[in-house]
Amino acid sequence: MAIQRDMGKAAAVRRTGEVPRWHHEADVVVVGFGAAGACAAIEAAEAGRDALVLERASGGGGTSALSTGQIYLGGGTPIQKACGFEDSAEEMFKYLMASCGPGADEAKIRMYCDQSVAHYDWLVRHGVPFKQSFYGEGSYTPTDDCLSYSGSELAHPYCELARPAPRGHTVQQEGIEAGSMLMRALCAATEKSGARILVDCLVQTLVLDDAGQVVGVLMKREGAEEYVHARQGVILCAGGFINNKEMVNRYAPLLRKCRFRAASDGDDGRGIRMGMGAGGAAIRMDVGCIVLPFTVPKQLIKGILVNRRGMRFINEDVYQTTVGEAALLRENGEVFLILDNDIFERPFAPAEIAAVEGSVAELEKALAMPEGSLQNTVEVYNRHAARGEDPLFRKARDYLKPLVTPPFAAIDYTTKNSLYTVFTLGGLHTLPTGQVLTPDGEVIPGLYAAGRTTSGLAAQGYSSGLSLADGTFFGRMAGRHAVGLAVPA
Amino acid sequence: MAIQRDMGKAAAVRRTGEVPRWHHEADVVVVGFGAAGACAAIEAAEAGRDALVLERASGGGGTSALSTGQIYLGGGTPIQKACGFEDSAEEMFKYLMASCGPGADEAKIRMYCDQSVAHYDWLVRHGVPFKQSFYGEGSYTPTDDCLSYSGSELAHPYCELARPAPRGHTVQQEGIEAGSMLMRALCAATEKSGARILVDCLVQTLVLDDAGQVVGVLMKREGAEEYVHARQGVILCAGGFINNKEMVNRYAPLLRKCRFRAASDGDDGRGIRMGMGAGGAAIRMDVGCIVLPFTVPKQLIKGILVNRRGMRFINEDVYQTTVGEAALLRENGEVFLILDNDIFERPFAPAEIAAVEGSVAELEKALAMPEGSLQNTVEVYNRHAARGEDPLFRKARDYLKPLVTPPFAAIDYTTKNSLYTVFTLGGLHTLPTGQVLTPDGEVIPGLYAAGRTTSGLAAQGYSSGLSLADGTFFGRMAGRHAVGLAVPA
Repeated sequence: MAIQRDMGKAAAVRRTGEVPRWHHEADVVVVGFGAAGACAAIEAAEAGRDALVLERASGGGGTSALSTGQIYLGGGTPIQKACGFEDSAEEMFKYLMASCGPGADEAKIRMYCDQSVAHYDWLVRHGVPFKQSFYGEGSYTPTDDCLSYSGSELAHPYCELARPAPRGHTVQQEGIEAGSMLMRALCAATEKSGARILVDCLVQTLVLDDAGQVVGVLMKREGAEEYVHARQGVILCAGGFINNKEMVNRYAPLLRKCRFRAASDGDDGRGIRMGMGAGGAAIRMDVGCIVLPFTVPKQLIKGILVNRRGMRFINEDVYQTTVGEAALLRENGEVFLILDNDIFERPFAPAEIAAVEGSVAELEKALAMPEGSLQNTVEVYNRHAARGEDPLFRKARDYLKPLVTPPFAAIDYTTKNSLYTVFTLGGLHTLPTGQVLTPDGEVIPGLYAAGRTTSGLAAQGYSSGLSLADGTFFGRMAGRHAVGLAVPA
Repeated sequence: MAIQRDMGKAAAVRRTGEVPRWHHEADVVVVGFGAAGACAAIEAAEAGRDALVLERASGGGGTSALSTGQIYLGGGTPIQKACGFEDSAEEMFKYLMASCGPGADEAKIRMYCDQSVAHYDWLVRHGVPFKQSFYGEGSYTPTDDCLSYSGSELAHPYCELARPAPRGHTVQQEGIEAGSMLMRALCAATEKSGARILVDCLVQTLVLDDAGQVVGVLMKREGAEEYVHARQGVILCAGGFINNKEMVNRYAPLLRKCRFRAASDGDDGRGIRMGMGAGGAAIRMDVGCIVLPFTVPKQLIKGILVNRRGMRFINEDVYQTTVGEAALLRENGEVFLILDNDIFERPFAPAEIAAVEGSVAELEKALAMPEGSLQNTVEVYNRHAARGEDPLFRKARDYLKPLVTPPFAAIDYTTKNSLYTVFTLGGLHTLPTGQVLTPDGEVIPGLYAAGRTTSGLAAQGYSSGLSLADGTFFGRMAGRHAVGLAVPA
């Protein structure tokens, strides 16, 4: 899918005085046709308003279509109930407040938890298929199953702070790219809603009137500049900025080390820069979702993750984004997974074996770790694991087994040799209504944003499914608020 | 010193059409009369322009006057030479590039290193006194001495990446608040330069013309609103934002844990928000300078810093801001300094003793650390220290001494019980000329910023003296560029 590439002057907003004429008009103009844009357009169109979606690619989908199609939902959804899991909005709230911080947006988390079951129903009504089945754990299901623990719900300290429940709801489709099915459904629902869709349009910047209200956009279409008037609001749903190297250098230089960017080409920060140009504040721009995919097969969680100095730094059973954050930000992306022969299996995701040796002492030497360091780490771990305990990091009992059977192996999870996956979590500061705020915390009239163009549910501390939650739910809220409907529904 | 307090709508810029009349006029309007503002005004006034400084307090000084008066200077200053230290712009550059990143601003660092000796001369010419003497190490001198190692120059890995030299130049004054002497000198030089100074004026926001050029400011003075026309530019020198709770929550929530804010009341982010309102991008807003002052007396560096799990996490001889960053951001602000009886001394800065026990095993227990954790840490440390080595973190040989003599003590350096000191390092994105950039990297005509209102030399990884370096040097550059002089001088 080709997209128009242009890192140019998105923040250089135009004034109405500079508009020769409006080439198009709509009540609500939605920039970007991923999950957030689709849901915003559907809500506005179903309210009887003229919604116009502008997409730079030749069709809808965006990064959402490339995702695993997992949406974080809970509080007692029909699927959770059918699979025998108890959940409540309150427990979900407690988990998200504990895991999405510090700096988590309490108002968004509260609204999302309270509305999660209704949001599930809305998705189903709009053709998104979910199978009534429980898969297990992880950020994706290789089968067409639905429910899984997609965060750190079962791990310390979260399991003590909130009653665990699986809340990852993967859209029904065989294979790990269920996002394509989600977007097939949402694109169809958008068309059905009556919203108009224009593709191959690269929105350049916003148009403001003299009072600072956002009243339209300037776009490039078939080589020409065209102005689009938005009578009730513009909703920016244009993704994050991981594919804009300069912005990453400027705001989040630590993320540069991750080799795999989970994003479509369109994630070049254009939406964020447009919003900033109109006076919006971008917040938490340093934060990324950093995935270190080492937990398949699950068996491998029985190993211990150590840094260059042979020291453990985390309970290995927390979610792989929490591990990724710690490994990259605290340990400089230089970590190894230590296994003994009993638990050894080849990791599912590409990873190299750094060393295999007959003893921990030899492994320590082969990894050029300080003498005694890894040996002491394994000694302390084993001593407690033998009693089913991990007083250092509190890995769950199921994964505790002394590492005693030679040979011992180290899997290389350094950024250099393995696939850290990353996308950005920072973006425009918005109210739960999607209204974009200035650095003073004032609402910018006529301007909305949703999805990865915003700082959303997870200020940091990601659980899988939160980006599609941000996109689908807060896209809807923005679409509703822009046309004067109640928020939440 | 009373200041006008107002967290209000700094980003809500005015347009020239809204200006009833200009109450004041100047070539260059400088917002804030700390080190950056003084130096900007001096350069503009000495070029024969009409420079007007607006200060919210009743007199000049700002946070600079509250500081230790240490300026990071090098490359072979007269003081360095007189004290027998060799240095070059290149070695200084290598050190700053290694320590101020990732994300360090190479253009600023390059210019500053190349101009550092000339900048020293400029300061001396403008009445800033320095004594030709070497003090030692640290972020301040309790005496009136000048030179000290004020960063991690002597510590691993920096000592291997750049030839160490002391570059902290403390202004000559007895006591640790030499910043007051610096500002006495710079305020006098400002008056002498012919710049006009208005105090008790709270600048509210910027005034832009229809083309987006910054042409003035709106201020509140004696209860009335007054507009100030800036014919050649406005220079924002209004400090950081550590005293704006909402901004800290929004951009840098991790810094909330630090109990002591090294800042005057004026550091409420007003300058940054004004710049953002005019279209400027604020970058690295998550970063702070976090000081954990445990290295006086120096003897204490022979102890080992451990986290809640009894594990070391850093070489104890790096600079106290690097230790502070690691302790707060990686270890959640929960660290302890472990000492034996041979090296025990009471810390100079307030700190509590968490436990004193007859053995490391008992100390481990008293600190509720996992069984074996601290014991193994001390065992590995001692084994290598006995050979004069620290393969884990490479603390310098001088500080390596096995911890073997009971009783053993733990000093409490948790955020809860000790004085982590913090100020913000994020701010407006500027060129070395002081010109403020938009999110697209475009220059905003008429707008400059310097000092802690900007993201400066240290993207992170602070060394003491870098803020006064940012303020004095880039304040000067902004003043020069605004009136059309060459930058650098």
